[in-house]
Amino acid sequence: MTDNEKQDRESGLTLNPKYDSNGLITAVVTDVSSGDVLMVAFMNAEALDLTLKTDVAHFYSRSRQALWKKGETSGNILDVVEVRIDCDQDALWVKAKPAGPTCHTGTTSCFYRKVKNGQLESIA
Amino acid sequence: MTDNEKQDRESGLTLNPKYDSNGLITAVVTDVSSGDVLMVAFMNAEALDLTLKTDVAHFYSRSRQALWKKGETSGNILDVVEVRIDCDQDALWVKAKPAGPTCHTGTTSCFYRKVKNGQLESIA
Repeated sequence: MTDNEKQDRESGLTLNPKYDSNGLITAVVTDVSSGDVLMVAFMNAEALDLTLKTDVAHFYSRSRQALWKKGETSGNILDVVEVRIDCDQDALWVKAKPAGPTCHTGTTSCFYRKVKNGQLESIA
Repeated sequence: MTDNEKQDRESGLTLNPKYDSNGLITAVVTDVSSGDVLMVAFMNAEALDLTLKTDVAHFYSRSRQALWKKGETSGNILDVVEVRIDCDQDALWVKAKPAGPTCHTGTTSCFYRKVKNGQLESIA
């Protein structure tokens, strides 16, 4: 990548996601009301396209190697309010309204434990 | 990974980060005051260890292939208030107090543009 390309990506207004070698980009989802980080997952170009077109979060499941509409089975979809992209366009920030618990374990957020003294502690 | 290992990782209280094939784990940093996502980067085991020991965010720079103390040059360090880990322990959420603008472009957050109608728009 030349310096010009780098600068265009950083300061330009063209959406030009930098997918990794597997065609994926990291997506961080926060709850637009609480600001809490709900989950971190990956999107491929198709998932991002569908997310932007439908305002419902879609991801790419690496384990299933398939497009994944979050909540398709559980009903706990993520209504997308805003999508941001970072300076070098290799990460997305999705602000969403969750229809229910985001984590497959049943918790509001996948981040239900904090690190304390080298161990984990459940968030009250 | 067996089902038991998966369950231990999800419900246990042992810190057992699932590093990728490059030895890295995704770290999302939010501002503990505003709740905004400031940046997304990677940590290796050494960076996570230093972050936990010093309460100052350290990362691993893929471009420079080196440990990276955020703010070492600029002074804009990230004081760590809390570190959380997600269900399958392959992502970290770092809540921090930033000493200054987090992005190397000079903005508070690396996420200074939102996607609108297939284009980017600067955040006011």
